[in-house]
Amino acid sequence: MSTLGIVKRNIVRAEAAAVEKLGRFGVATIHEAMGRVGLMKPYMRPVYRGARICGTAVTVLLQPGDNWMMHVAAEQLQPGDVVVAACTSENEDGFFGDLLATSFQARGARGLVIDGGVRDVDELERMGFPVFSKAIHAKGTIKATLGSVNIPVVCAGAIVNPGDVVVADVDGVVVVPAALAQTVADAAEKRERFEGEKRAKLAAGVLGLDMYKMREPLAAAGLKYID
Amino acid sequence: MSTLGIVKRNIVRAEAAAVEKLGRFGVATIHEAMGRVGLMKPYMRPVYRGARICGTAVTVLLQPGDNWMMHVAAEQLQPGDVVVAACTSENEDGFFGDLLATSFQARGARGLVIDGGVRDVDELERMGFPVFSKAIHAKGTIKATLGSVNIPVVCAGAIVNPGDVVVADVDGVVVVPAALAQTVADAAEKRERFEGEKRAKLAAGVLGLDMYKMREPLAAAGLKYID
Amino acid sequence: MSTLGIVKRNIVRAEAAAVEKLGRFGVATIHEAMGRVGLMKPYMRPVYRGARICGTAVTVLLQPGDNWMMHVAAEQLQPGDVVVAACTSENEDGFFGDLLATSFQARGARGLVIDGGVRDVDELERMGFPVFSKAIHAKGTIKATLGSVNIPVVCAGAIVNPGDVVVADVDGVVVVPAALAQTVADAAEKRERFEGEKRAKLAAGVLGLDMYKMREPLAAAGLKYID
Amino acid sequence: MSTLGIVKRNIVRAEAAAVEKLGRFGVATIHEAMGRVGLMKPYMRPVYRGARICGTAVTVLLQPGDNWMMHVAAEQLQPGDVVVAACTSENEDGFFGDLLATSFQARGARGLVIDGGVRDVDELERMGFPVFSKAIHAKGTIKATLGSVNIPVVCAGAIVNPGDVVVADVDGVVVVPAALAQTVADAAEKRERFEGEKRAKLAAGVLGLDMYKMREPLAAAGLKYID
Amino acid sequence: MSTLGIVKRNIVRAEAAAVEKLGRFGVATIHEAMGRVGLMKPYMRPVYRGARICGTAVTVLLQPGDNWMMHVAAEQLQPGDVVVAACTSENEDGFFGDLLATSFQARGARGLVIDGGVRDVDELERMGFPVFSKAIHAKGTIKATLGSVNIPVVCAGAIVNPGDVVVADVDGVVVVPAALAQTVADAAEKRERFEGEKRAKLAAGVLGLDMYKMREPLAAAGLKYID
Amino acid sequence: MSTLGIVKRNIVRAEAAAVEKLGRFGVATIHEAMGRVGLMKPYMRPVYRGARICGTAVTVLLQPGDNWMMHVAAEQLQPGDVVVAACTSENEDGFFGDLLATSFQARGARGLVIDGGVRDVDELERMGFPVFSKAIHAKGTIKATLGSVNIPVVCAGAIVNPGDVVVADVDGVVVVPAALAQTVADAAEKRERFEGEKRAKLAAGVLGLDMYKMREPLAAAGLKYID
Repeated sequence: MSTLGIVKRNIVRAEAAAVEKLGRFGVATIHEAMGRVGLMKPYMRPVYRGARICGTAVTVLLQPGDNWMMHVAAEQLQPGDVVVAACTSENEDGFFGDLLATSFQARGARGLVIDGGVRDVDELERMGFPVFSKAIHAKGTIKATLGSVNIPVVCAGAIVNPGDVVVADVDGVVVVPAALAQTVADAAEKRERFEGEKRAKLAAGVLGLDMYKMREPLAAAGLKYID
Repeated sequence: MSTLGIVKRNIVRAEAAAVEKLGRFGVATIHEAMGRVGLMKPYMRPVYRGARICGTAVTVLLQPGDNWMMHVAAEQLQPGDVVVAACTSENEDGFFGDLLATSFQARGARGLVIDGGVRDVDELERMGFPVFSKAIHAKGTIKATLGSVNIPVVCAGAIVNPGDVVVADVDGVVVVPAALAQTVADAAEKRERFEGEKRAKLAAGVLGLDMYKMREPLAAAGLKYID
Repeated sequence: MSTLGIVKRNIVRAEAAAVEKLGRFGVATIHEAMGRVGLMKPYMRPVYRGARICGTAVTVLLQPGDNWMMHVAAEQLQPGDVVVAACTSENEDGFFGDLLATSFQARGARGLVIDGGVRDVDELERMGFPVFSKAIHAKGTIKATLGSVNIPVVCAGAIVNPGDVVVADVDGVVVVPAALAQTVADAAEKRERFEGEKRAKLAAGVLGLDMYKMREPLAAAGLKYID
Repeated sequence: MSTLGIVKRNIVRAEAAAVEKLGRFGVATIHEAMGRVGLMKPYMRPVYRGARICGTAVTVLLQPGDNWMMHVAAEQLQPGDVVVAACTSENEDGFFGDLLATSFQARGARGLVIDGGVRDVDELERMGFPVFSKAIHAKGTIKATLGSVNIPVVCAGAIVNPGDVVVADVDGVVVVPAALAQTVADAAEKRERFEGEKRAKLAAGVLGLDMYKMREPLAAAGLKYID
Repeated sequence: MSTLGIVKRNIVRAEAAAVEKLGRFGVATIHEAMGRVGLMKPYMRPVYRGARICGTAVTVLLQPGDNWMMHVAAEQLQPGDVVVAACTSENEDGFFGDLLATSFQARGARGLVIDGGVRDVDELERMGFPVFSKAIHAKGTIKATLGSVNIPVVCAGAIVNPGDVVVADVDGVVVVPAALAQTVADAAEKRERFEGEKRAKLAAGVLGLDMYKMREPLAAAGLKYID
Repeated sequence: MSTLGIVKRNIVRAEAAAVEKLGRFGVATIHEAMGRVGLMKPYMRPVYRGARICGTAVTVLLQPGDNWMMHVAAEQLQPGDVVVAACTSENEDGFFGDLLATSFQARGARGLVIDGGVRDVDELERMGFPVFSKAIHAKGTIKATLGSVNIPVVCAGAIVNPGDVVVADVDGVVVVPAALAQTVADAAEKRERFEGEKRAKLAAGVLGLDMYKMREPLAAAGLKYID
């Protein structure tokens, strides 16, 4: 009955063109374009300044203190993938370091998003292998317990299905369902164009109060100005 | 009876000369010069390395997940102001991003201190608009509920009155009541001069034990040396 | 009966050659070489990017909000020492700033590891005095209550005896008992050589599954591949 | 594209017999019977001692500081349901109190599981309406923003689909997918019978080391006894 | 310039009749009657089940690890007062135990609200001296550093002025400014009467959707029902 | 070189008479009698109301998500022992439930103190087996990795050596080194007698200010009374 001990080999990845297009936008823009869903919790942070990821998810469910399944996941990686690792309970051990990063990079992976800890951070930066994690922790893990690869997981509060697009930058990590990738990419593009116009007005001194026509609803809501 | 739904237009800002003088000192020095009060909690951090703010507070009280009042605050900004945003309950949503920053900057604001989350951090750094916040979070907010502008607020544990001087650097955020700005600035100057002399002695190898004449009180308190 | 109010002057420091050798390895490598013990909790972080420490511990037990014993510790410092400061209760006040750093540096200390807060972070970076702490906080402390110097302490979850080797880098902080310093340094060296070979194989595309011969134990544990 | 603003009226609830049977077992037993998945995070606690729930999930996705959708959910409740409320961002406001409890109870609901705050706790206990929450907080909420009802949600780290069985007791909250309810109930029954036999042996002084035949694998793993 | 080292003897307490009337309502009701302001953060919890307080605030500002000012506050207590203790930095030491409780009770105090830790909890329950705190901690404190008594303080995020009414129950802690005590008490009474009528309707099966006339605004906001 | 994989069979337990005597005092009193050291962090809480423990420590070092060593520890238990379990990294899984409790109780153990999670809390209360833990969590653990039994451990910030006396009540958990047990018990007895006299005076209305002769040092420290 359990979902542990499973590796799914054939997953449906989002289409490459949509993934590339999503890679041109920031996480905040994509999150807006999706209708404000799909974000991971804000404790997920890049392990080095400037890290950025966009790719298709290969998911991993880890057991606390055990990174065995990361090696199983490596074999399932294709160029353009991002490893998304969840854990069956809260744990900040260092599940990942420069050796696994070397292996993932050799397989064409674009980065790692992990609801746990990682180590060898200086080396990861030198390699240019971006990682977003809950913690940095030198503590190593064992290889003794089965988890799963490519099952749906909950990572930092967000549901991730294998093949979904994962985008990560300084503002956080967002998950775009594979089937919506192209639509969201288009919506993000439209939104960004739109924002450029608004930015120009605001820079010229126009107030949001006027640009968004907020004065009337604010008055209706009861806002009072006093001197 | 409520303090919600209010915008105070006329506030008494600290005198410009005192604000500028305070801007020459670090937060730790100013905090000491005030008698060790007025600090925000240490979870308030700059969103990019090197951010620094000194200005007069325009305060905002937000509702969770709602940044409507930020737009109302924009109109109340004058050159040299700092927006200080508190929230009626704990919430780390991204209340602020590059569009609002553009508007605030166009009004002459010097930065933002917010007991909540912000986004578009890379763009904020490019713009040179310094922000100190509790979190970075791509999650957007709505515009539906009234808070207030320029009422006294509690931000990250510190009371901030509109017009107070707010100074923020890598060591934290400190609030100087408008009426005390000049006195605190003078005290900070005196303290800094003083510290230079002490630093020289310590660098020369003099021990704090001797410089501060601590050996006697330590012995009186019962300190025992053993081998 | 208490362990408060004590300064131990003669401590047995780890041998200099072993300390220097340990300084060539990363915290993750040393932690592995010790059999995965001795790490501090992952909330201990460098106060500036690039900070790194390796030296022999002079331990301090502080009282909350009181840094009196830091001045007592200064006198016990010898070149190559690292101050390791614990506190009798959880407290994030700024126990340490640039004046104490000047004094510690003048005595030859190589850095500070503190289960509490520090301030003057920009100045610490300019001085090149590395600090790993739980918090950054401008709040100053008083000098009124006795703690101890050079007694065994628990710092961020790790036991530290005076004279132990403390190594800190971006991955965390590890404590090597003085008596084991040479053995651990040798084990770290062997481990690092070993890792170089593994890295080359992984970079060439060999999977950890094969390199570590994991396929059989994974199958024995019940791992199932599905399509 | 958004999943906000939706109410699904027809949901497939787990079969009543399976739900009733699951109600006879503790959360720890059910979690084991499921293969150790499906648990919410341990910060979810009963708001009064002795609270216990077993029923079918009606899910609600709330906005921070806004409980509008709770009223929408009330209409979708059938006898035997449990409301499971998630939020689009972390928020501990008091989304729920005795008035909503009166309404839910009148509709036949058996309790509430909410990844947020509740209030009127004494009254909830008097009414016998069990609630498991992240926080207790008197702060009220508004009714201004759309969420959804009966869409899949992530509540305290667990995926909940409408119609799933939710069981909550002092040990935590577990979610059983509707399709697995009968199988899990049977497995829980078998497990509980089994545990009775083991308990009797352990109470008689038999060691787990012998009962579970652990001595050999422990020796193989390298365990050393010293005197 | 500091606000430390001050004891204010003459404070204006809220009128006794208003205090007594406020004591008849729950914290959630009073918070609503005030327009949803004045609540402390939800980490403030009663140290024993059933604790409840209503009285006028005598405020104390403590230093971390130091309860000297609690003894100073004792002398300022009058029958009907509640001690509200804040701290200059976050600290969970046990500032208060059964001896101070005996002294406060002898002076007529009705309880303690403290943004820190307390101990002797079993004895406090036996004495019937209610306490709301951030933590329970056996760790004692010293008596060495000046704070203040009866200055405005920020306790768990709320501003408390001496003489304000403080009400605490299982739902949290709320602060009513002395000048508003009677008005808020009247508003709470009206609100409670009103709630009784609503409760009866909801218990009879009327939906909040209809009672509050929410169907139209929900539709206007775009809520869609699907099957 | 590692301290993992070790079971020490012969440990020196504190003398029975001293343990029994310590059992008559509260944790706060014992902590004071020891000179204010030896306390665990305040997040350690009883899993049911009224739990209380006093006995000699058998220590266990666990791996995250793995309770194998608890079974190894069971064999080392003697009547009057308390199991003190630490973990190599932070983890809140349910390491312990009613089956292990049955086994521990059959061996004469008096309770468990664990820096992790436990489950079957209702059953533990029915059995009268007191437990103090960091969390309650239904999540089970595996039996795959070696830790150790009866080595020195750091549990919730306190050093515990096998054979030390551990006392736990509603105020927290304190560790008394075996060699100091009798001395601390005597000091606690004296302290408690002393407190009785002070309590009587305070109850009669004498102020601590006068009883402890604080007025002069307060004035010397600069305390000012204003009206």
